[in-house]
Amino acid sequence: MTGQPGRVLALSGGVGGAKLALGLYRVLPPDTLTIVANTGDDFTHLGLAISPDLDTLLYTLSGLDNREQGWGRRDETWNFMAALETLGGETWFRLGDGDLATHVERTRRLAAGASLSSITGDFARRLGIAARLLPMSDDPVRTRLDTDEGWLDFQDYFVRRRCLPRVREVVFAGAAAARPHPAIDAALADPMLRAIVICPSNPLISIDPILSVPGLRAALRDCPAPVVAVSPIIGGRAVKGPTAKMMQELGMPVDAAAVARHYGDLVDVYVADEEDAGSVRGLDLPVVLTRTLMTDLAGREALARAVLAAPGRIAR
Amino acid sequence: MTGQPGRVLALSGGVGGAKLALGLYRVLPPDTLTIVANTGDDFTHLGLAISPDLDTLLYTLSGLDNREQGWGRRDETWNFMAALETLGGETWFRLGDGDLATHVERTRRLAAGASLSSITGDFARRLGIAARLLPMSDDPVRTRLDTDEGWLDFQDYFVRRRCLPRVREVVFAGAAAARPHPAIDAALADPMLRAIVICPSNPLISIDPILSVPGLRAALRDCPAPVVAVSPIIGGRAVKGPTAKMMQELGMPVDAAAVARHYGDLVDVYVADEEDAGSVRGLDLPVVLTRTLMTDLAGREALARAVLAAPGRIAR
Repeated sequence: MTGQPGRVLALSGGVGGAKLALGLYRVLPPDTLTIVANTGDDFTHLGLAISPDLDTLLYTLSGLDNREQGWGRRDETWNFMAALETLGGETWFRLGDGDLATHVERTRRLAAGASLSSITGDFARRLGIAARLLPMSDDPVRTRLDTDEGWLDFQDYFVRRRCLPRVREVVFAGAAAARPHPAIDAALADPMLRAIVICPSNPLISIDPILSVPGLRAALRDCPAPVVAVSPIIGGRAVKGPTAKMMQELGMPVDAAAVARHYGDLVDVYVADEEDAGSVRGLDLPVVLTRTLMTDLAGREALARAVLAAPGRIAR
Repeated sequence: MTGQPGRVLALSGGVGGAKLALGLYRVLPPDTLTIVANTGDDFTHLGLAISPDLDTLLYTLSGLDNREQGWGRRDETWNFMAALETLGGETWFRLGDGDLATHVERTRRLAAGASLSSITGDFARRLGIAARLLPMSDDPVRTRLDTDEGWLDFQDYFVRRRCLPRVREVVFAGAAAARPHPAIDAALADPMLRAIVICPSNPLISIDPILSVPGLRAALRDCPAPVVAVSPIIGGRAVKGPTAKMMQELGMPVDAAAVARHYGDLVDVYVADEEDAGSVRGLDLPVVLTRTLMTDLAGREALARAVLAAPGRIAR
């Protein structure tokens, strides 16, 4: 099915989502893929505008990513952080020397009046990425969490407090006033759109911020192309990060079916791991079971092919 | 004379001045030295507040300086610049990875409302510098040059155009509204002040900006402590940088005497190189001849001792 003509729109957060985004990028004609990234994790740190999920996607798609570490750039050096520590600066958020260039140059261009999307597009082109990479919105949306330690900004929760506080509520500040990037509407209106893929990112803090942008959820649901969501849960556990812990704290069962139910009527086809066959049996939507753990490049490509084939398998 | 009690105030630009400042710092009880740095070279680049002369002094006095290169930090890496070039950023002003921490943290603190002097003082303490390091003013003063290529900001002239344009005039924008740092007035009023040293920096672009701050020149002249100026010219040539070229373009003879005449009635004792005995013979102020080329640490210390002894030698 990979060879089938048409365009694909993918929604992605950082690490987990970026793995499937890379798989899609590699198995599709590169200029047919549009990736919409979560910007709810964005924040200003040390005066620099940092967009963690966009950066992870930029680095992953251009092959600059550090696969061992799971974030940041490969062959990175850390002289900046060492010197900053000497000067008494804040060092809880680690910024590599090469990575800094992305934040400094983005901050400079934003201050000069450029939009986040135009900056991201230019960075992607300069890094040789043929796919279209878009922030969900050029307007600021900031994920904040109500926890047993009070309200925390996303990076305070995620990095500084290492996801340790118990989460009671997740909100997306600014979402009500945010506009979806116009290119998303254009992509959804494209008669050549063959599928919308929700990557296996954390539904609560990576995909929900995207869906919180007014009009976006309805536009995705009403689009004639099938929405294929990929479970971030494998064998009842999250591959990485706080997904399972957060689901539990917010009163959700920690299983593949709960993620599908969370997305609700948005999803046309659900792709879950073979290990979770039991969990998804009771869902009232089409499910494709496959191996969803992407341990290497071949795994990313294999899952991408399975995801792209999923709507056709259901239709048969 | 080095063991003589009392405090010393030094005026310094970057590299050449910092060499003597280090010599003074090493031969004096460290907490008796106050260094006033030129901030006319300061500029905002990539959104970062950069103070080249303050930084050179911070790195030189803390032993972090790169002696081979003559600017920046030792054991520096350049991943930031390489990554910035890939993203299409401006790379004509080289910023090392460790050096960046100074600019990012200073910019962050300035934006939070701290003064340049308080930030500089904190950086100096954290780098283990016992001398007091002060910007000439917390108010912005910016050196601009009228050249055969038109008006240029200092770093455009100095780094981007490598001092190639012919200089017609040098102005210090903002000087009229700038206030000398209060600690300078306090140092000048200190009865324990034994000498004011004008380091062998470029008089036109390193010392003149300091003297352009309203009231500072008169305060230095009227202070009872002797003002000892050190010639940046050795054997009719500048050791480094555009000093000779600029003097010539501005119609000054390129010799040690011309620098003394440029400072005029400000100077009580002039320290020149033995090679320039002929040049300084006609000056109507006391001159001490010594070897002023500071090729190593011993040379820096030797010149510092000679400078501190100079007022006493004249008095005898």
